[in-house]
Amino acid sequence: MSSYPAARYTGSRTFDVSPAAAVPPGPGDVLIDVAYTGICGTDLHIFHGDMDARVTVPAVIGHEMSGRIAALGADVTGHRVGDAVTVMPLRWCGLCPACQAGNSHICHRLDFVGIDSAGAMQRRWAIPAELLVPLPDGLPLDRAALVEPTAVAVHDVRRAGVVKGEQAVVVGAGPVGLLIAAVTRDAGADVVVVEPNEHRRAFAVKLGLTAVDPAGDVRGFVDKWTAGAGAPVVFEVSGAEAGITTAVDLLATRGRLVLVAIHGQPRPVDLHRFFWRELTLVGARLYDRSDFETAVELVAAGRVPAAELISKVVPLSSVAAAFTALESGAAGLMKVLVDCGSDA
Amino acid sequence: MSSYPAARYTGSRTFDVSPAAAVPPGPGDVLIDVAYTGICGTDLHIFHGDMDARVTVPAVIGHEMSGRIAALGADVTGHRVGDAVTVMPLRWCGLCPACQAGNSHICHRLDFVGIDSAGAMQRRWAIPAELLVPLPDGLPLDRAALVEPTAVAVHDVRRAGVVKGEQAVVVGAGPVGLLIAAVTRDAGADVVVVEPNEHRRAFAVKLGLTAVDPAGDVRGFVDKWTAGAGAPVVFEVSGAEAGITTAVDLLATRGRLVLVAIHGQPRPVDLHRFFWRELTLVGARLYDRSDFETAVELVAAGRVPAAELISKVVPLSSVAAAFTALESGAAGLMKVLVDCGSDA
Repeated sequence: MSSYPAARYTGSRTFDVSPAAAVPPGPGDVLIDVAYTGICGTDLHIFHGDMDARVTVPAVIGHEMSGRIAALGADVTGHRVGDAVTVMPLRWCGLCPACQAGNSHICHRLDFVGIDSAGAMQRRWAIPAELLVPLPDGLPLDRAALVEPTAVAVHDVRRAGVVKGEQAVVVGAGPVGLLIAAVTRDAGADVVVVEPNEHRRAFAVKLGLTAVDPAGDVRGFVDKWTAGAGAPVVFEVSGAEAGITTAVDLLATRGRLVLVAIHGQPRPVDLHRFFWRELTLVGARLYDRSDFETAVELVAAGRVPAAELISKVVPLSSVAAAFTALESGAAGLMKVLVDCGSDA
Repeated sequence: MSSYPAARYTGSRTFDVSPAAAVPPGPGDVLIDVAYTGICGTDLHIFHGDMDARVTVPAVIGHEMSGRIAALGADVTGHRVGDAVTVMPLRWCGLCPACQAGNSHICHRLDFVGIDSAGAMQRRWAIPAELLVPLPDGLPLDRAALVEPTAVAVHDVRRAGVVKGEQAVVVGAGPVGLLIAAVTRDAGADVVVVEPNEHRRAFAVKLGLTAVDPAGDVRGFVDKWTAGAGAPVVFEVSGAEAGITTAVDLLATRGRLVLVAIHGQPRPVDLHRFFWRELTLVGARLYDRSDFETAVELVAAGRVPAAELISKVVPLSSVAAAFTALESGAAGLMKVLVDCGSDA
């Protein structure tokens, strides 16, 4: 393979899909034959131009992926050509206060691979071997592309400290919200999702979840469900101002609100309720390696609905069309995967 | 004593100080000769009429106090006439979700004694014996009136999970802020207070604290102090919108913001920073019995500046004047005590 296809974001809602020259992996790196790359909400933000200040065009983006090792660079041990792998797309500095305190996943100089450096929307991808996470035999690679968002959910649920038998509410039933709901349920908790979009509510119900429309009396529903106590755990995954208001309103005394979504601007928050009920708000971002490894287990064991969340698989050559379809909020579209091998 | 003087809030910024008929304590109650009652920020809110919907006039208010047992009702054991005591002014229902979950101090039907029922701004006070907290011999009763706000500080520092060697910022250097600073320092942490009022800053400095003016470059100061990491713990005790903004801005990665102050309206909060740095916000309200008992120890041992915080002692007959002086924000006035015995 002297060249391979790569999709490059070139700014202004445009991708250029064209051949890139194949080069052998450098020392410590591996070359991956990328199988599938998922499109994430952050990728959509990039497509919209919201992150042009951070992304250097032309940029190969994409950080939710699966593939097989195609070649090993010098000094790479513990891996073999042909191994099925995914990538934990974080590179940290090791020196900043976050790294020094053991929180390298939120390093102050984090290189988020696929945003800050070249990502997986290409057939061949060279990355440092230390980012590899092995996949078990028999796990279909399309499902394996859901490991990264599942790791987000695992991290969020861990930050929440969910315990068996608790009742949790997830505000926002997109792919991450539904994965959080699934991981929370897997931890032995009861879950309700709150979602204004009827297609997403219907999808949640198909997954066996209870879904409530925030246009109705959600507080009344949760009060009844929790015998008047409110929810001990709420995940805010909507990113909307109304989502925060709902989340705070639904919490039980000493309840924990886990903030997963990105809120681009300051939001009015009922701090009096935080005081009065001794509530806790916990920010949760990304994952660490243990979260990622747990996510591999959950996806492989079918304990999260990875297969069900895949709405569509498009060839690399159609990546721009996939972004356009996703941003139109096409009814029922959950996760769209880019098949990085089909055009090879 | 067939009658005794009592101050009653009668609405419209007015107190009526007049004799009340003495009655013997009922079963389970004790009668206390009140020595000193401190005036709290909440008492000022009552005086301003802000809490007229909650307070039934005429109302004897006051919940920061010290005194000696004057008489025991039937069935009271473990106490003797003459014992020095303070009162933990909380009565809970035992049945609501907060009580059932072990958080009775924030009971959903809490009777905060001195607000929801008769308080300590009177010479003689009948209260249930179960609210008594014994005071050690030799603790001057004026200082002992500072036990209640010290218990608030103990609770706040415990909610923060402050550990030895940490660096903490206290935003707002009124009596509670300074007590939090003192308890934090007593826990082995380094403390900086942020306070716009120059008299309060000067007072903090007299207590051996470092005090910073938020009009200056507080972020720069804290960055330098923490070698660029930010503060692992910040207490928001100001109640001001700017206080929240400052607090969030000063936190280190994974930092804990303890919300102590009452914010009467929703505040714009930089939730993106909570996500990005995985910050935690923790509401803290009141105290439990262990906090109260710790507070007695700290005050008795001089490990908090109870004596220093007493700015003024006024006779019960002058209580309205004391409120007026306090609300004018008279320079340097910290805690004002009402001497409930001097007119007896």
